[in-house]
Order: sequence, then C-alpha cells, then structure tokens
Amino acid sequence: MKPRQSGRRRSLSLGELGEERLLWEVIAPHLPRHREVVAGVGDDCAVVRSTGAGKLLVLKTDCIVAGVHFAAEAKAAQVGWKALARPLSDFAGMSARPEFALVTLIAPWETPVAWTKELYRGLAKAAAAFEVAIVGGETSSTAGPVAISVSVAGTVEKKRWVSRSGGKAGDELFVTGTLGGSRAGKHLQFTPRIAEGRWLTKHFAVNAMMDLSDGLGADLPRLARASGVGFAVDEEALPRTRGCSVQQAIADGEDYELLLALSLDESRKLQQRWEQKFPRLRLTRIGRLTRRSKIENRNFPSGYDHFG
Amino acid sequence: MKPRQSGRRRSLSLGELGEERLLWEVIAPHLPRHREVVAGVGDDCAVVRSTGAGKLLVLKTDCIVAGVHFAAEAKAAQVGWKALARPLSDFAGMSARPEFALVTLIAPWETPVAWTKELYRGLAKAAAAFEVAIVGGETSSTAGPVAISVSVAGTVEKKRWVSRSGGKAGDELFVTGTLGGSRAGKHLQFTPRIAEGRWLTKHFAVNAMMDLSDGLGADLPRLARASGVGFAVDEEALPRTRGCSVQQAIADGEDYELLLALSLDESRKLQQRWEQKFPRLRLTRIGRLTRRSKIENRNFPSGYDHFG
Repeated sequence: MKPRQSGRRRSLSLGELGEERLLWEVIAPHLPRHREVVAGVGDDCAVVRSTGAGKLLVLKTDCIVAGVHFAAEAKAAQVGWKALARPLSDFAGMSARPEFALVTLIAPWETPVAWTKELYRGLAKAAAAFEVAIVGGETSSTAGPVAISVSVAGTVEKKRWVSRSGGKAGDELFVTGTLGGSRAGKHLQFTPRIAEGRWLTKHFAVNAMMDLSDGLGADLPRLARASGVGFAVDEEALPRTRGCSVQQAIADGEDYELLLALSLDESRKLQQRWEQKFPRLRLTRIGRLTRRSKIENRNFPSGYDHFG
Repeated sequence: MKPRQSGRRRSLSLGELGEERLLWEVIAPHLPRHREVVAGVGDDCAVVRSTGAGKLLVLKTDCIVAGVHFAAEAKAAQVGWKALARPLSDFAGMSARPEFALVTLIAPWETPVAWTKELYRGLAKAAAAFEVAIVGGETSSTAGPVAISVSVAGTVEKKRWVSRSGGKAGDELFVTGTLGGSRAGKHLQFTPRIAEGRWLTKHFAVNAMMDLSDGLGADLPRLARASGVGFAVDEEALPRTRGCSVQQAIADGEDYELLLALSLDESRKLQQRWEQKFPRLRLTRIGRLTRRSKIENRNFPSGYDHFG
C-alpha cells in the first residue's frame, strides 16, 4: 500500500527530492526549537539536558505500518498524529511525562513529497499539543509500504511511576472515556491521556495502570497476570462508544484510554474528584481485581494480535 | 525481499507464532537484566535510572531495511549486529556513552521464527559487547521487506560532547581505520568506535567529530559546512582498505570510522599517544580544515543518498 498522489498533477517524489533535501526542506522546518535541546537535527545524535535528581528516565518506541495500522487513503496529517500519539499513550499509562521524540520514516521512493509534508505536519501538531520536542530521526527507502517508527524519552518521579504489576485483589477497576468502535475514525485522532495519567498519581495511590491499545479483552488479562490476580468485569457497566456492542467494547482495540486499579478507599475519593477536574471525560468503574479465578475470566475474549 | 527459510523443513513463521509468543519466547530471553533498568520488556514503557547531575542525555535512532541496508541472504545474526551497531557508531561520533536500546521489528508474517531468533541473537551480542541494555521495543507485521528500527539512549558529560560544528580553519583532520570496500562484508560486522571516541575527549581537545556512515565524500563536506570552514584532503594519504581505489575510499560509504578535527598542537600529542593506546587500529592524518575555498573542495564527490 502506497500513499495516494494528492491532486491531479503528479507531485514531486522522495526519490526525486533526495534524502538531504528531505531532511532540511521537509522535516527540519517542522521541528521547533526547544530550550532543553542542546543539539538536534543534523548532528550524529540528539543531545538534551538531563532530568536531574529524583527522576527516572522513561523510554518507549512504537511503529505504524500502512495496511496494518492505517489505510493508504488515510489523511497523512492524521497518520502523523497517530504515529506520535501512540507512544505518548504509553507514557500516560505509566503516569510519565514525555519530553523528546525521534521519528523514523521508511517510505518508497515514489512517495509524494506533499504527502510527507502533511505527515510531518501531523507529527509536529501532536508534538506541540503534548509539549514534546522532536529532536532527531532517520529516513530510509523501502520496496514495501510506508512505516513510521517513533521513539519517545521522558521522565517520571521515582515515587509516581505506575506499572501493570501492582494491582491487588479487591482493587476497583476503572477506565477513562468509552470503548469500542475506534476503527471508525478515533484510531487516527485520539488524545493520549497524559494529563489524566499525571493527575491521577499526584492525588491518588494508583496500584496499577496501563493504556488500552489492544482492547480491554487483551489488556486487562495482561494487567491481572502481571499483578498475579484475577478479575471480574461487569460487562453491562462497560462505557461503550455510541453504536458499539459489549463485544466491540471488549475486542475492537485501539481505545487509547487508561485502565487503572485502586483500593476501594482511593477509588471513592477518585470518583468524587474526577468529574470536577475532567468534566468532559467519563471515568467508569468496570469491575474489580480478584483472587485468581478461572471461572470469572472465562468469557473474556482476547484482543488484537498484529501477527495473529 | 524476504528472509530465506533456514533448513529444508519449513520452519514456523511469525504469523503462526503470534505477537505475544514472539515477545516472550523469542525476544525476551535475549534481553539480559541490567541493574539500571527499573521496568523493561512487558510494561507500557521502559523505566531506567536517570543519569544524575553534570551529564546530558543523548538520543539516536536508526533503521535498516532489507534490500537497502542488507541483502535477503545476509546472516540474520549479522543483520542484528548491524542494526544496533549503526546508532552506536553515532554515539562514538559524539564521544557519548550508549546505555539503553529499544528495538522495533517490522516483518512479514511468513518470516521464519528461526531467522528472527538469530536476528535477536545478533542484537544481543552487540548489546553485550558495548554494555547496552535492550529495554523494550515493538513488533509489527508488514506486506513489505523486513525493517529493524533501533533507538539508543545514553549520556555524555556536559564538557565532553563533540558536534560536527566546532571545526576551525587550520585544524588537522584524522580518520580511524581504513576507508572503502565496506560492502564486501565489513558493513555487517564493523566495530563502533565507542572506546576510541570516549578516550579522545578524555585526553584531547577535539574540535569536531562525526562517524563516517555515508562516505568521506559526503560526510566531510557536512562537517566543514556545519563548522563554517573549507577543507583540503590529501587523497594519496587516505587509508584505503586493501584493494580499494581512492575513489572507493571516498565514496563507498558505511565505513563507520571516526572523522575528527583538532588543532595542530593537540594533533601532535594525539599522534604520539594513539598507537600505544590502540595499537591495532590505524589513525591517519588525511588533511586539514581551511578557510572557505571552493577550489580545494571541487574534486570531492558526494556520497551515498538513500533516496538518490
């Protein structure tokens, strides 16, 4: 799958433009300067100011491939947004703050330059929205479909990072937003829950958290397994995207919402304060973590597998 | 281009294995534990210990694609080595210390699991050789050729990082090793000059440095341009790989050697001490940086362009 030509006139391709001009004329203008960046695009590596005492370094990489994560006819700016927003959603799931991104574009020679400019416009828009500096990257040709690989570095306070493995039997389970139906469009335009993820650990003792990328049906079992507990979900309580069935809410995937587990006491405080802080985003109790139990989990389908 | 089946019996493919088993059975066993890693493979992000005061964070990403950077018949372990060694060579060029890597594999469903295991064996070998911890990554299917994208994070002391832009007219130019002929095999088995890059800035005032990935003919003009100077190369002095012409030494690319510029005084000290420290690696004076001059640079061909 190759990006469509935009417009009737055949536009300039990456092969005609060349790698050097691609970097300096198409990519670099989209990368705003940032006071923490000592050396950015154009040197061997990006050099950035370190994070200081008391913080941990957080690293995440992700990729999207034409024909797998986006259709050839998808708008390039939305593809760019998605490419950066996906790893940012993982930062949200750990309550970490993203700071610096590296972007690799693997694309056929015949890819239109106009399409590529739009792609980087979308990347830059997501970077600006979440205060991330794109500090470097790489480009390569390929005989196959377009792929965009994005790596993000950031920080989290030593006492605030949340893994999937801290859930305890008896914890209440919550999800943000609504689940299901992402393929109808949201999968290209979602908002990583960075602000929510940061606020949660500032005010509450969150035992386990992750972002929902493969669907609740795949991701909740991962959280439970990592925590060494079981789970019970009230399927009727699931916050479904309009028009979606329970099955879709569980198995569609690409929700990019947060799944979190807290004690009963903490969850009561959370429910009281959430709506005031985030009045436009639902927070829904969907069940609880339990002692290991095969019976309660039996009806839970598994989610999306890129190779499956 | 797809990786060859290894052996006569049709081996298990990634599509048959599935993404979850690929991670836990093929990839994870190759990722050694590391005391600086707080959370690694299996959580939303990798969480690592921060670098403390006085250091800068260094970030680099790179990718290799079948049919562009390696042939389908290349040994998978060598492909893995190259995928990690390339960004490490950029760290060498900045005198930075690589610490953590993220690896993304984009591969067709039909890729043999055996090939993939060998790939990660090569990645793990390079990681161990240069004391880098692979702390995360991503996998995706594709309808195209295999691509491996690697991002590396590390550190450098605030006063020791070297960019391409600090060269001064009158500086002496040096390269490590020999140039040219890399495609005959070295491009899959080279040694990133991390130790040399670190030693150089510990003992000498290096004004500008970079690694030679696209060939001296492309990379030296970049260094000169970034430094705002010209250059004069003694083409007869170039350290050529056995059997290579001057033209090949200049234009073949993928040398992964260091190019550096120092004052005349510093370069004399360097020449006295190099051989004792690195007796098995040549260091050759190849010319000098000059005031801007078109005449002296005119015969210098340009190097390799991935899209050109």
